[in-house]
Parts: sequence; structure tokens; C-alpha cells
Amino acid sequence: MNIRVGFGYDVHVFAPERELWLGGIKIEHSVGLLGHSDADVLIHALCDALLGAANLRDIGFHFPDTSGDFKNIDSKILLRRTMSLIREKGYEFVNADCTVCAEEPKLNPHIPTMQSCLSEVMTVDIDTISIKATTSEKVGFVGRKEGIAAYATVLIYKR
Amino acid sequence: MNIRVGFGYDVHVFAPERELWLGGIKIEHSVGLLGHSDADVLIHALCDALLGAANLRDIGFHFPDTSGDFKNIDSKILLRRTMSLIREKGYEFVNADCTVCAEEPKLNPHIPTMQSCLSEVMTVDIDTISIKATTSEKVGFVGRKEGIAAYATVLIYKR
Amino acid sequence: MNIRVGFGYDVHVFAPERELWLGGIKIEHSVGLLGHSDADVLIHALCDALLGAANLRDIGFHFPDTSGDFKNIDSKILLRRTMSLIREKGYEFVNADCTVCAEEPKLNPHIPTMQSCLSEVMTVDIDTISIKATTSEKVGFVGRKEGIAAYATVLIYKR
Ligand SMILES: [Zn+2]
Ligand SMILES: [Zn+2]
Ligand SMILES: [Zn+2]
Repeated sequence: MNIRVGFGYDVHVFAPERELWLGGIKIEHSVGLLGHSDADVLIHALCDALLGAANLRDIGFHFPDTSGDFKNIDSKILLRRTMSLIREKGYEFVNADCTVCAEEPKLNPHIPTMQSCLSEVMTVDIDTISIKATTSEKVGFVGRKEGIAAYATVLIYKR
Repeated sequence: MNIRVGFGYDVHVFAPERELWLGGIKIEHSVGLLGHSDADVLIHALCDALLGAANLRDIGFHFPDTSGDFKNIDSKILLRRTMSLIREKGYEFVNADCTVCAEEPKLNPHIPTMQSCLSEVMTVDIDTISIKATTSEKVGFVGRKEGIAAYATVLIYKR
Repeated sequence: MNIRVGFGYDVHVFAPERELWLGGIKIEHSVGLLGHSDADVLIHALCDALLGAANLRDIGFHFPDTSGDFKNIDSKILLRRTMSLIREKGYEFVNADCTVCAEEPKLNPHIPTMQSCLSEVMTVDIDTISIKATTSEKVGFVGRKEGIAAYATVLIYKR
């Protein structure tokens, strides 16, 4: 079997005076996400799923938050590097299904733009990048609007 | 590669004077789950995994909770429609693995009935529908019995 | 399609005077995880993903925490039995991608040892066992250091 599955999970907390970047695009909102990079929680979960599927460790291993190189970095650069890493190991991308769990803002109107953005960064067909949005029904840290969580699952295969 | 993976996650909170519907069946319990539909958190996670695998947006997109059409609706109807949507796009179902994370009630005795119910609604072999139960060890919103979370992962393939 | 996907999720809480077992190895830390067995949350999530993929119920079904047989048991024994169960049903292992979500201790230095340990227990190639580590950014029960959560996704196929 030359196919592999991967799963990624990431969390970032809201903070004032930060921009909100999700799925590679900037979304207008009263608060943003805190992080060493641009804190794009969706891209981070996706990178981790890709790295995990290819057994290439995780995002913290390749892009440590102790490194000045990644300070405020655009996470699309990390995603592009991740795609290079999995292709260098001989893998091709099959599909990704991402879930953003956020109480606010409403993400549905932004999803097609995110899909288009990520498929360009990854140089894959847009129909292979699914992005879904859900809330946590006011419970847990997501429900209390302390932050956003993202899940991603991917399939890749060896040429 | 004509195979696709999907992942779904859903949360509903407990509320008095509501029925508890899980995996398409009614379970006797002191409280039920709150939601616009019957709040069957397991079916919702499964629908989201199926829609995500087929890149068909998410359950909130197809069955918005702002629509009177879905008020108190039996989630089995949403699951049947979801299966139609993925089949219309040319996909066949391979398997699903669902996890219900609940502190109570005990779900193990109900699992074979749920599997039987879901496989009939989806018109798939019962051996392709796995349902698992776990707790959150008294921590987090699940552990404090504020609600139930469900995870589902699926494989589908293009004919 | 003779391939199956599975997903597992597990939680254990920290407790004083317990050892910390993760990925089959003992890690030096001020607290350990509480559980009926050795509470190896990573192995438990992996067992559940394997059982779910093969539609063989869940870890609580096969190894109930009400049974004296499993009191303080080494979870590697449960993983070995799980691999036997899926092989008896005619499945072969493809790959696993595991994510440990813990605020502390730092797990990165231990990951290669865990991978080596799990691949030996499962008698599979080490390059098919991915283990990733992340935090919960100080929010939620993981962020408050109340416990550790683990996610695992696997692919198996029928011979
Ligand atoms: Zn991140
Ligand atoms: Zn729901
Ligand atoms: Zn456990």
C-alpha cells in the first residue's frame, strides 16, 4: 500500500492588536490570534497533517518558535516548505479536509477564498482542499472565545 | 488516486427537557442535547466527515440552523441527504470510524443498535460503520458533563 | 476498496506519585498520568484507531477498566493484543499518525525512541509510525496542565 493518512491539530488564543489570518487570508475581526508566526491555525494543522502522513516529524520540529527566522512569518511560506518536504520524500498529495472550530467570526463566506489560496500555495487542484467551519456551542475554550482550534486530515501517496 | 479522506467534529450541550438522540437512536437519560435539529452529535460529525471528503462544504452550509426546514429535524434525514450529495458527485462510501466522547450515559450497550441504524440509513454494509465510546476523565467541558463531543473519519472513493 | 481508516482519541489526567508513560516509554517528569492501566494515552488513542478501522469496537470493550486483569498493565501489551485482533480479521497495517497534546513535559527529544518502541511492539516498519507533539497554548484542560490528550489516525488494508 503506497497511501498514507495524516492528522493535524492546532490551537491559538485570541489577542488584541493582532491580525486574524486563517487559511492563508486576512479576515477582518476585532481580535487576532497570538503566535510566533502569523498564527494561522488552519495552515498549521494542515502542515502537521502533511508532515505526519509522510513521517517527517511536526511543525514545531521544522519551524521552531524559538527561531527568529519564523517570527511573524506568513504561514503560507511554511505550507510551501512542507509541500516541498513531502515531495522530496517521494509523496504526492491526494486530498485534505480541514475543520476550523471557532465561536466567531463567521467563516462560511471566506471559505472559497481560503480554498483558492491554499490550492495555489500547494500547487494542487482546488477540489482536493476542503475547509469546514463549526462552533463549540459556547463550551470549552473555543466556546468561551479564548481561541480557535483547527483539525486537518490528509491523504498522500508514494509515486 | 481516486480515494478521499474526511474528518468531522461536532459538539452539543446538555439541556433539560430534551431527548437524547445519538447514532440515530433515542437513549433514555436524565438530560438531552440542545440544538436546532435533534442534536444528534454523532450523525452531525459523520455528515461533516462525508461532506469534507467529497469537498462539498459542511453541515451548516447545507442544513443551516437559521432555516425553519431543519427545526427539530431527525438527523437521519440529514445523513440520508448527505449520502445522496456524495453519490451525486460520483463517490462511493468505503468506511467510517466514529468516536463519541461523553462522561455519561454509558454508550457501550447501545453501539450495535446505532451501527445497525446508521448502516440502514446510509444503505451500506454494517461492517463499514464503526462507533466507539470514550470519556474525558472528568476534565474539559465533556468531563464536566456540559455536553458531548463527537469525531468521525471516513474514506470514500470515486467510481 | 480494501482499505480502511480509523481515528482514536484519549485523555488522561495528571496525578502525583504516578509514572509518566507515553508511546511505550517512561519519561521523567514531576507528575504522571492517572488510569487503571499505565495510562499511556498515546498507545490508547492508537489502539482505538486500529480497532475502529477494523470495526472491532474500542479499547474499553476489549480491555475494561473494571477488570483486575488490566490493573496497572503495560499498555504495550494492549497494543500487541490489538494488532493480533486486527490481523486475525485479515487486516494489515499501513501507517499511523499520532499527536500528543501536552503543555509539558517537552516531548520532542523522546519521539524517535517512542517510534522505535511502538514499531517493535507492532512488528511494523518504523517509517510507518509518526508521532507529533503540540501544546494547547495554555487554554483548555491541556493548557491548564490538568492532563494530556492524544489523537491517532491509521490506515489498514485487507489482504
Ligand atoms: Zn500554530
Ligand atoms: Zn451538530
Ligand atoms: Zn486511556
